[in-house]
This record gives sequence, structure tokens and C-alpha cells, in this order.
Amino acid sequence: MIDVAFLGTAVRPAGTAVVIDVLRASSTITLALASGYERVLVAGSTDAAKALRAPGRTLAGEVGCARAPGFDLGNSPEETLEPRTAELVLATTNGAPAIVAAAADADEVLVASLLNVGAVCAQLAGREDVLLVCAGTDGRVSMEDVYLAGRISAELEGPRSDAARIAESLAAFYPDAIDALEASGGAIGLRREGLESDIAFCAQESIVEAVGRLTEMVDGAALITAAPVTASQTAASELNS
Amino acid sequence: MIDVAFLGTAVRPAGTAVVIDVLRASSTITLALASGYERVLVAGSTDAAKALRAPGRTLAGEVGCARAPGFDLGNSPEETLEPRTAELVLATTNGAPAIVAAAADADEVLVASLLNVGAVCAQLAGREDVLLVCAGTDGRVSMEDVYLAGRISAELEGPRSDAARIAESLAAFYPDAIDALEASGGAIGLRREGLESDIAFCAQESIVEAVGRLTEMVDGAALITAAPVTASQTAASELNS
Repeated sequence: MIDVAFLGTAVRPAGTAVVIDVLRASSTITLALASGYERVLVAGSTDAAKALRAPGRTLAGEVGCARAPGFDLGNSPEETLEPRTAELVLATTNGAPAIVAAAADADEVLVASLLNVGAVCAQLAGREDVLLVCAGTDGRVSMEDVYLAGRISAELEGPRSDAARIAESLAAFYPDAIDALEASGGAIGLRREGLESDIAFCAQESIVEAVGRLTEMVDGAALITAAPVTASQTAASELNS
Repeated sequence: MIDVAFLGTAVRPAGTAVVIDVLRASSTITLALASGYERVLVAGSTDAAKALRAPGRTLAGEVGCARAPGFDLGNSPEETLEPRTAELVLATTNGAPAIVAAAADADEVLVASLLNVGAVCAQLAGREDVLLVCAGTDGRVSMEDVYLAGRISAELEGPRSDAARIAESLAAFYPDAIDALEASGGAIGLRREGLESDIAFCAQESIVEAVGRLTEMVDGAALITAAPVTASQTAASELNS
């Protein structure tokens, strides 16, 4: 069954859970791994991230969309383009709890964004028990996350739940990703903080191949590394080259 | 704010909560009140409904879509067209808990179906804090409920949440209500029990004016009566006559 959880708190057991926080945690995790960070430690709060500060780690995180005080980076994906260390510690308020909840209920947890949507769909090819987990924002459903869930669901084969079809109808409603992101509640806080360029950045589709996958929990944080490239990814990549 | 809760378990505080269980509880409640039942007692289980059996009460309810053993009626709206008593006791697995949850968090609770969608929108005109509560099915999101939430949301003025826009996109995806209901997971059980005629019946729009409203909780059951007709309903009715 292809299913969608509209909120990170609505996770159910599944073979593969795909956590989605388009603006911006899952986009930042994806781009960090694609840019050369070897590991991303996703913490549930800025305090939890600070406790993980150590040599070889760069701290990224936000408070109300703006860079958290004392942190090396904010939560803009572009800030990860040039890795400073092997590890990135990322504090997020919505993405991290969703990943932790998914880890408790799913055999495998992947992280999806528009930036790697093609690679995510390649990873999911053939999987029959997929739960697309929309992180949401502070307990409210986020349109941009459900939009991406619908985009992914529409590419997968097999039976799907009503929730998956609802997400697919939203994806069909917005032919261009940027329109869904611009219309979302998640965009409001970014505009307020002068970070509207992040919206356009996160709306780019399949610009990288890296797909974050949960390896283990480390001191309460989710350790994400790049999943091995699948045969179907390799085939698609050769087809495109 | 116009908002949508995709599941009855996801209710939040609101001025007016509108409970939606298109297939079939909210359709049956609506038609029972329109047909002349003065009160509908909505119970959370068949056992709870049996405990409410008394002279002057007709028992209706389902187990796996079929009429519950020993009950006077099943949960098909059409069975309520000719009232047998002043009160109908209705046992539902998804609608009743949603009504009870909404009652705990909202100042006012209405019951909506496609059968009375026009009257519901008239009742809601001018209200600024509306939560459309989709009952769902056994903890899973139901497409037919989100479809109706989207139909109602699209008729209301004022700011709306991402969840409301997602529901509206689903409503826009299905120009005809019957197509949304036929495609829904909720239709599967009805077809299995030979009750597919209920799907077409529940897809009829604005055939009655009655709108059920929660009056009080009685012995653990939700007592629903017809809300007074609003001025805008009267105006619309005169316009149409």
C-alpha cells in the first residue's frame, strides 16, 4: 500500500517511511549529503544540537526561520553547498520529530525533497509498503509537504490509500512545484525573514542524486547518511547522460 | 481561519466544528432530521446504542456496513425516510467519536453531508473560526469526507489553512461528487455488502435543508437536533422558489 501521513505525529508502522519537510529540513539534509557532508545528525531542538557540538561538526539550525544564535549556519540548503566538516548537525523543529517517530515504526526511513525527487522514486521502485510522512509545521498540515508526497505517490505503482490520492490531487492541482511552495503556509515565515530565495531553491526538481537514509539514533539525534545508489538510479542516470 | 482536520482524532479547539462522515453517518443523521425524526442520539458502538433502547426510539446501526443484529434499521440514509418514532438512535464507529471529540473542543458542532451542503454553507456564513472535521474510517483518512470538506471550504470567505486548501484541491479534482465517492475507500465496504445504492444516494447535493447540531451529551451519546434555519437559508430558499 502507498499511504500518506499528513502529519509527523500520524505515523503508522510501514516497511519504508519517507520523511518530507520541503521547507526546509529535508531539502537541507539532501543538499548537505549531495555536497559532501558524510553524515547529518538531525536534532529535535537547538539545545539538543548545541549539546552535540564537537570538533569535526558544523552546527546548522533555525529559530523562527532565522539562524539560531551562535550557530555556524541557518537552515538554508544553499549554506551547505561547501562542506566545512565531515558532519553537519541540523536542529529542526518539525523534521526531526517526524524522523524520530518514523524510525520507531518503520523498517527503513528515507528523507525526500524536491531536490532529489527522482532519486527517491528510484529508491522506492518495487517497494510495496511505503508511508510518505509529511512533517507539517508546528502540528499543522503543510501544503508543500503534501504536494511532494503526492508527486512521489503518483510515480509509484500498486494500490494506494485515500490519503495518497488526496495528495496526488494536490500535486495535480499545481503543475509547477514553485506555485505550491509559494502558496504554502510554510513560505510565510521565510518571506518574513527575507529568506524567500529558499523557496525557489527548494522548488528545484531532481538536481541531486543523494537520498538521505536513517542509519541509527545517536544521543537522541537521527544519524542520516546517503543511501547506496540503486540499480534503477544508475540506469536512469545512464539514460540521461 | 477555515481549517480542516483530516481525522476525527485530530480535532483542535474551534468556534464551530463541522463533523463530516459522508458514507454514511452524517448523511443518515441529516436525512433522519429532514424526514421528521426530532432527535438523533449518536452512539459510539452498537452496545452503547442497545443500552439506549427504549419506547419511542428506533435503533439504527451497522457492523461492517451491514445492519447490526437485532437493530431496527441499518445505516442507509434512505431507511430513515419514514420516521417510526420521535427519536433515532444511531450506532456509528467513525462518526460518533468524531462528534464527541469535536464537542469537547468546539463551542458549536454541526453535522454536514452532501445532502444538506447548501444549508450547511448558509449556516456557516459569517463564521470566522470553522474547523471541518473529517471522521475518516477506522483511523484512516477518507477521501469522501475530505472531498466534502473541500466543497464547503471553497464556499466560505476568509483566510484558510493549508489543510483547507488541500481539501479544496481534491474537491476541484472531482467536478462530480459521485466520482469522488465512487473512488473512495469508503465505497469498497458498501459494494461488498450490496449497498452500492447508498453511494449514489449520499452523492446527492442539497436535497434537504435540515442541519444537525449537537445539543448535549446524553448517557455518552451525542444528542443531535435540527439547527434553527438561518436568515441566509431563508433568503436562498425564497430565491430558489
